[in-house]
Amino acid sequence: MKTDVQIAQEAKMLPIVEIGSKLNLREDDLELYGKYKAKISLDVYERLKDKEDGKLVLVTAINPTPAGEGKTTTNVGLSMALNKIGKKTVTTLREPSLGPCFGVKGGAAGGGYAQVVPMEDINLHFTGDIHAITTANNLLAALLDNHIHQGNKLDIDPRRVTWKRALDMNDRALRDIVIGLGGRGNGMPREDGFDISVASEIMAILCLATDMDDLKERLSKMIVGYTYDNEPVTAGELEATGSLALLLKDAIKPNLVQTLENTPAIIHGGPFANIAHGCNSVVATKLGLKLADYVVTEAGFGADLGAEKFFNIKCRYAGLNPDAVVVVATVRALKNHGGVPKAELGKENLEALSEGFGNLEKHIENVQKFGVPVVVALNKFPTDTDEELKLLEDRCKKSGANVVLSDVWAKGGEGGIELAEKVVELVESNRGEFKPIYDLNLPIKEKIEVIAKEIYGADGVEFSSKALKEIQKYERIGLDKLPICMAKTQYSLSDNPKLLARPRGFKITVKEIRASAGAGFLVALTGNIMTMPGLPKVPAANNMDILPDGEIVGLF
Amino acid sequence: MKTDVQIAQEAKMLPIVEIGSKLNLREDDLELYGKYKAKISLDVYERLKDKEDGKLVLVTAINPTPAGEGKTTTNVGLSMALNKIGKKTVTTLREPSLGPCFGVKGGAAGGGYAQVVPMEDINLHFTGDIHAITTANNLLAALLDNHIHQGNKLDIDPRRVTWKRALDMNDRALRDIVIGLGGRGNGMPREDGFDISVASEIMAILCLATDMDDLKERLSKMIVGYTYDNEPVTAGELEATGSLALLLKDAIKPNLVQTLENTPAIIHGGPFANIAHGCNSVVATKLGLKLADYVVTEAGFGADLGAEKFFNIKCRYAGLNPDAVVVVATVRALKNHGGVPKAELGKENLEALSEGFGNLEKHIENVQKFGVPVVVALNKFPTDTDEELKLLEDRCKKSGANVVLSDVWAKGGEGGIELAEKVVELVESNRGEFKPIYDLNLPIKEKIEVIAKEIYGADGVEFSSKALKEIQKYERIGLDKLPICMAKTQYSLSDNPKLLARPRGFKITVKEIRASAGAGFLVALTGNIMTMPGLPKVPAANNMDILPDGEIVGLF
Repeated sequence: MKTDVQIAQEAKMLPIVEIGSKLNLREDDLELYGKYKAKISLDVYERLKDKEDGKLVLVTAINPTPAGEGKTTTNVGLSMALNKIGKKTVTTLREPSLGPCFGVKGGAAGGGYAQVVPMEDINLHFTGDIHAITTANNLLAALLDNHIHQGNKLDIDPRRVTWKRALDMNDRALRDIVIGLGGRGNGMPREDGFDISVASEIMAILCLATDMDDLKERLSKMIVGYTYDNEPVTAGELEATGSLALLLKDAIKPNLVQTLENTPAIIHGGPFANIAHGCNSVVATKLGLKLADYVVTEAGFGADLGAEKFFNIKCRYAGLNPDAVVVVATVRALKNHGGVPKAELGKENLEALSEGFGNLEKHIENVQKFGVPVVVALNKFPTDTDEELKLLEDRCKKSGANVVLSDVWAKGGEGGIELAEKVVELVESNRGEFKPIYDLNLPIKEKIEVIAKEIYGADGVEFSSKALKEIQKYERIGLDKLPICMAKTQYSLSDNPKLLARPRGFKITVKEIRASAGAGFLVALTGNIMTMPGLPKVPAANNMDILPDGEIVGLF
Repeated sequence: MKTDVQIAQEAKMLPIVEIGSKLNLREDDLELYGKYKAKISLDVYERLKDKEDGKLVLVTAINPTPAGEGKTTTNVGLSMALNKIGKKTVTTLREPSLGPCFGVKGGAAGGGYAQVVPMEDINLHFTGDIHAITTANNLLAALLDNHIHQGNKLDIDPRRVTWKRALDMNDRALRDIVIGLGGRGNGMPREDGFDISVASEIMAILCLATDMDDLKERLSKMIVGYTYDNEPVTAGELEATGSLALLLKDAIKPNLVQTLENTPAIIHGGPFANIAHGCNSVVATKLGLKLADYVVTEAGFGADLGAEKFFNIKCRYAGLNPDAVVVVATVRALKNHGGVPKAELGKENLEALSEGFGNLEKHIENVQKFGVPVVVALNKFPTDTDEELKLLEDRCKKSGANVVLSDVWAKGGEGGIELAEKVVELVESNRGEFKPIYDLNLPIKEKIEVIAKEIYGADGVEFSSKALKEIQKYERIGLDKLPICMAKTQYSLSDNPKLLARPRGFKITVKEIRASAGAGFLVALTGNIMTMPGLPKVPAANNMDILPDGEIVGLF
């Protein structure tokens, strides 16, 4: 069997100008990055802004398990299949981070015959967007420490600096550091730390900004720390807005690539799905809706985090009206939710499947609460039995959702035609009843409670005294009307990663609330959320190489 | 008067494919990065490797003063002028670092009507080479700390780690830090620090490697630290070579841009000129020699550092035979060397000029020691008097060098035609007697003494006990046959920045010797060399902006 990288390297790519022309993009609209990547000029949206939008389809998933679900693969496969049945479709995805690539993942651009290419470029530096974000993040940090060093006119309390530095790397040794050592000439000593770049607020801003003006507005509002009097200090007050925007002048433009079947893919932005909202950029999604009949997009982690934030944060800010949702699941993953260990997932187990189905069921109900029609895409495995598939079909139907088998990993777009047809049917039946599930004018605590009860199925929320103090502060400084970005384990509907399937009778504990005032949300942390991953015992990097003939080894 | 950025933004650039065709590059040889930048495929050198080389001209300068000399401007102007008189010429320059750009410099791509464009891209992320180097540098650091954390099979002494992290930023707070705090899960606490990315050994390697194989060989030899038994540990032993090379697969390809007069410019690599050798890449220079009749190249700082390392390190490793050297000077800068403060440089002062001429004189003599013909390019200022010019001309002639007035800043190539003609005359008179001034087989101390006495004019060298111990170590581990990379103040021929003009009767003190075993040189440090600059009181970043119409402000 061929590996993903072998399949990707054998791909017959079309010049990116030809891919662009499928979306009626002129050669002049594209800035080429080599032959198979291009940035799309922001002028295109301006030119098309009065055109009617295409249809927007979100691909999300059950809570992830070690068995894997294939969310990105399904996304790419569905977009190829929609093109096959005559719908001009573009997939919009997030840009992969280098950190996990060198850690355990080795790459992330779909899988099998449902990939985006050139996968080695997409997985390495791509068009430099994340590097631009890293640089902007660290310029702001350098300006901040320089400000303190050069007299501290803004009266910033070095103990209350909240802005961290960033690298696009898995590097646990940088989580907690002390900087400014070595004497007076090296600045003011203080505690600091690095986040992985995709966790930078600037990444979230790049993904929520609608244009350069909005980007600058959001950048200027970022809170970098607090004064000795506990008043917020912003990037704007540090006079950093212009230089940060300048560093992002190309990063804000969406990137055009292609799928293995030469259909268009726009890959742009990639914020963390815990302390940020986990969706590709608004600019890319909105542009896609002007360029194509269908846009297939995604959101990080399971639907409890990804879809919830997609609806309540991204769609609300961008004025998007999603037309359908695909929830990806596998029989194996649901059995895992039902208590079956990874090694035994190959055996039929109707009881565990029935128990594990609760997870999928809850996600179906949740999507319905937002007023959007939903279909389940079941990634087929050879070990799935007819009994298991039948059980799943029956249970889904009871929840008001159809199940469609998908085999895009092995068959590409051909393996997703039934799914595509079902999606079109749903989209055409959509009555446009989408709405976010909480009002921004609710108090902070109530907004969090709505999410916990309605989406997670919790009985309630407990707030630490730290969180309560922070809520008071945000109310005082006028940040209480922002939407909530939940930072919670991805593995469970609850905040306990061990509670699988559909847990009941639990409470959520909010330990801390951070303000991403530029991105425009309050992050409610329910546990220790890792914003700087570490490398494993044998990093994927150890097995990577580029051979004399240019062949790339170890990306997968 | 127009600013540099205004002149640059008004430039009528040709599509980069047309620039390439001036060098007989096919469209297929280029990977476009937008319309005006391209990477040149490494296959081109392979195709042309039997073609005779063009002529190689180095532009260097006197020791820099606050008055400025205009080395890059002269380089760009000379290359435009050579094209004007019918010599197909390419200029090869270093890539500017972002750090100084946001600090005091605001940009670096020549000046006036002798610039390379698109200057805003060249000064910002360009084609991502420096970001790739930053990433490779920090991946190696992460792999190293992860290795220690995961059991430390190689027995690395955390107190003897020599590999530092890097950012392309001026950020003094990162010079001396402590990492790995916060408990067992965050790795082993130890002292660390960040260098600016252009000071990374990986940048030096990228610039000295002849191809991907050589790059990998050099990467594998980099010493990252020492064991508890004080034995070196290399990047190769950490199994990092392949992943680092993969990260650099595009960075190793030279970048094609253009001058304001649409002549070709290759800008590639930009190592520090103190702890590294300060020249653009070997790949770019060698490729240029296959593509053009003339290659005009440069080296960092004054000729005592820049030209010396260009000859003894770059030319030696790459087998280059330089055909002529241009030493850039101004009457104002020489008067400053002669003791005139900056505010009074506008007044005629023959005595100070005569005193300051010693600096230029020594550089002329030095170049001659390498067996390469030399001409002085005098950047003209309105305040220069006829008497001063006459004095300079006479003194230069006595040293065996002609002086040619250059006015490329105001007039572009037209202002450098006389210089170009003189350079052609020199090149055609060159008898090919170039040779490095020390033998690699000399002991480390003697190699340093040759440079100090022959080039700096010192009476001798004193070595600290630390340096002596390090020399013993490098002899023991077989690194004593490497060339020497001097890390010395750029402002004086001595190691004391206050000794201007031509100091005599002084000694050089070598305080420390570091091994860049991958790049292939030993760095002899004569003082505290800053490898992570800081930002000034009012950083250039504060005044940068991108306006709604795309106009860029604050780069200059």
